Amino acid sequence: MPLSVCIRVPDNDKNIVAIRGAPPHVRRKNRERTVRYRLIRPQSGNGIKACTLVRDRYRIIRLCRSRLGLLHVRKKPLTLWGEKSRFMKRSVGPQTLLYPHPDLIVGTYDRDGRPNVMAAAWGGICCSRPPAVAVSLQKSRYTYANLMEQRAFTISIPSADYVREADFFGIASGKDVDKFAATGLTPVKSKLVNAPYVEEFPVVLECRLLRTVEIGVHTQFIGEILDVKVNESVLGEDGKPDVAKIRPFAYDSMRMEYYGFGEVLAKAFSAGREFRR
Amino acid sequence: MPLSVCIRVPDNDKNIVAIRGAPPHVRRKNRERTVRYRLIRPQSGNGIKACTLVRDRYRIIRLCRSRLGLLHVRKKPLTLWGEKSRFMKRSVGPQTLLYPHPDLIVGTYDRDGRPNVMAAAWGGICCSRPPAVAVSLQKSRYTYANLMEQRAFTISIPSADYVREADFFGIASGKDVDKFAATGLTPVKSKLVNAPYVEEFPVVLECRLLRTVEIGVHTQFIGEILDVKVNESVLGEDGKPDVAKIRPFAYDSMRMEYYGFGEVLAKAFSAGREFRR
Repeated sequence: MPLSVCIRVPDNDKNIVAIRGAPPHVRRKNRERTVRYRLIRPQSGNGIKACTLVRDRYRIIRLCRSRLGLLHVRKKPLTLWGEKSRFMKRSVGPQTLLYPHPDLIVGTYDRDGRPNVMAAAWGGICCSRPPAVAVSLQKSRYTYANLMEQRAFTISIPSADYVREADFFGIASGKDVDKFAATGLTPVKSKLVNAPYVEEFPVVLECRLLRTVEIGVHTQFIGEILDVKVNESVLGEDGKPDVAKIRPFAYDSMRMEYYGFGEVLAKAFSAGREFRR
Repeated sequence: MPLSVCIRVPDNDKNIVAIRGAPPHVRRKNRERTVRYRLIRPQSGNGIKACTLVRDRYRIIRLCRSRLGLLHVRKKPLTLWGEKSRFMKRSVGPQTLLYPHPDLIVGTYDRDGRPNVMAAAWGGICCSRPPAVAVSLQKSRYTYANLMEQRAFTISIPSADYVREADFFGIASGKDVDKFAATGLTPVKSKLVNAPYVEEFPVVLECRLLRTVEIGVHTQFIGEILDVKVNESVLGEDGKPDVAKIRPFAYDSMRMEYYGFGEVLAKAFSAGREFRR
């Protein structure tokens, strides 16, 4: 299949010169193709500038400096002028920025046995065997003392239906408020660990505290996941939890917003096989 | 505003009895309302079973056992028969299940200075001051040795446009393949740390290794985030990164799929205020 390339290239910051690639077949090796190109306005522009532009989408193997030269490229979607500026980066400073942040609802009992929940976004899975999850809390949090005493916690994953309740769990403190009573949600005592979870939330991890790691203002709590419980209503026909039914959401720390999930994009460990030689 | 409640309740496992709540106003205190209810088929059914059903959505303050009784409830969206079963949980065992898992592309140099990237889902932000990110790797990974030697890494967040490339970064090993060459993506050396990032990916964290934590089969690498770089093209009008332009995706470890993001659901630290007394 001939590869037709038409690339518009600036020869300086203002003028744009078009390079048109003739349908080639000079050389083919794996995904590399050699593209003959010719400057439409050869009085201005040169191949080197073309190179810096097309490398965003085409891997340049070799580039001749002649005005009628050869571009060795990998076949990828057509690159148009403007691609380069898409990747220009700006520093935003040392931020706790990541996409996506989860919204982890950490459940603990206080020393009087009262159930409490808090929302935490600094965390994630940290080990496969033993299955373990990490969540970071500041010492000022009510949950911090609970966790240190009970050495057990749950993580409930809220669905989008409960985004307001989950947000409240991050606003209020268990020192002042019974968050279950305030939201009308139901604490259920885990049968495996001494910690409550939120009955209405579709996914629950029951964790035994393995260790704590002091990092800075946050202490990281690493918990062994003893069991995961999932609402039967969110299981798919294959018996596996279905993300479209769970409807989890993520936290955007830059704009301080919660956002939902969309469609399946690709199969993991499969979609990338096309790049294997 | 009168609260009208109509709840269908099973009086045993098979028959269903309807309880109709009359528009009440017997008592009101905070969000509590007293609802008069009456059994449509009073020969069967009783209030106690109604209680176990409605507590998913209504917080029951007090329930009279009489056939024409009172339900003290908190106002929440109408609960219909079937609500209870929505929250029935099934154990799926001690899994590394969480929603959402991120797709973190960890960039390192090997001892010969060759750039490498790998995909990791076990990680997340772990501290605000110093800003720090944690990512867990197995010892068998090529990146593991690189990280131990260089004590520096980057995390690039791919956009949905590059889900296949990012998947390849999790399939292939840097021992065998130059993953940048194979995908045609561009390694750029960080100016702050001795590690490469993926130029085409919209968000990049540049990290200095703070410490490692041995958990089980995984070693957790905690890196201080020295800077975050964001494509100018994904900044919003307010100058902040815009998740709708970044188009990050998440990894579903149960179904081994990548899924994209949807709409903004709510403002954080705001949507939950309604539950404050």
